[in-house]
Amino acid sequence: MKYPNGIIKKNIHQQNTDYANRGMDLEYEINISNDYYKEQNMALIYKKATPMKATKINYSNNKKQITEGFFEIASTTDYNGLYKGKYIDFEAKTTNSTTSFPLSNIHQHQLEHLKKVNELGGISFVIIAFTKLGQTFLLTTEKIFDIMKDRKSIPLAYVKQHGYLIEQKFMPRLDYLLIVDQLLEEKNEI
Amino acid sequence: MKYPNGIIKKNIHQQNTDYANRGMDLEYEINISNDYYKEQNMALIYKKATPMKATKINYSNNKKQITEGFFEIASTTDYNGLYKGKYIDFEAKTTNSTTSFPLSNIHQHQLEHLKKVNELGGISFVIIAFTKLGQTFLLTTEKIFDIMKDRKSIPLAYVKQHGYLIEQKFMPRLDYLLIVDQLLEEKNEI
Repeated sequence: MKYPNGIIKKNIHQQNTDYANRGMDLEYEINISNDYYKEQNMALIYKKATPMKATKINYSNNKKQITEGFFEIASTTDYNGLYKGKYIDFEAKTTNSTTSFPLSNIHQHQLEHLKKVNELGGISFVIIAFTKLGQTFLLTTEKIFDIMKDRKSIPLAYVKQHGYLIEQKFMPRLDYLLIVDQLLEEKNEI
Repeated sequence: MKYPNGIIKKNIHQQNTDYANRGMDLEYEINISNDYYKEQNMALIYKKATPMKATKINYSNNKKQITEGFFEIASTTDYNGLYKGKYIDFEAKTTNSTTSFPLSNIHQHQLEHLKKVNELGGISFVIIAFTKLGQTFLLTTEKIFDIMKDRKSIPLAYVKQHGYLIEQKFMPRLDYLLIVDQLLEEKNEI
């Protein structure tokens, strides 16, 4: 079992305070949660590699070194994988706002991708961390498309009402699969 | 509908000859098949980005240019995605051999990954192109692990007996989801 360095179990209140203070590195939280899920044989969920294009490569001294390259725009979402036989796909975003999540934070093509995942029978959602509140929520793609009809940002009240607060624990740090279990139950799929 | 440049519909015999002659670019065949599946709203299956690490980045002239970087070893397989709600995961390999597929072509950690996908209820397999024969097969992870007990390469006869020949068509070029349908039927999952 890999432990993140220097983690000490704390009560939820202390954790939340710490998260708020240090700005909550959401990607790290999700990655170590995914490591835990994998070690426990619960799920295989991966962060996709940042797409880059190598345009010049030096083949000398026996290893290929990139000497020129560019970052490319991700065509899909950050995370995908397997849980209970199902295909899971999600994007993870943070906001410093304490009142709403601006939808401009998610690319239109990523939203379309999430919608397509739903249509093809997968499970898709967005994980939104309100860093200053120390709270992280899961909001399903359906609920995002519902609010997008009227608004360009998602009010925190809407996230609280239609999303799910993700429990922050020692292990896994962000237990978002607990919420996925609820989603599957609601769909009567498990 | 995106057409690959200069493709003209041919009969199967001609196609096979052409594939054999030009060495069959398997990655290209799979990618355009996946494009077709996506456009037809049948499946979402993606080639993962080649993992690279950018170690020096130039932030001048308004775009981030990588000036030093390295290729990293892929921790998983080349392709994954969603079909009929299911999680699909596979590796694609070519061989010039006309008699067998050397198992050394697949990394041990990739085989372990495929096995784990199976254990968690996903669909996993390897697509093997025998380029000189112009034939491409799908072999399930189970069948690969079966033969690995005794051998370091998979005889073509074994691939023919326990695998599935993938039909090569105009569109999609390599219709491997037809085989996945068969696998799902055998598991009584559709």
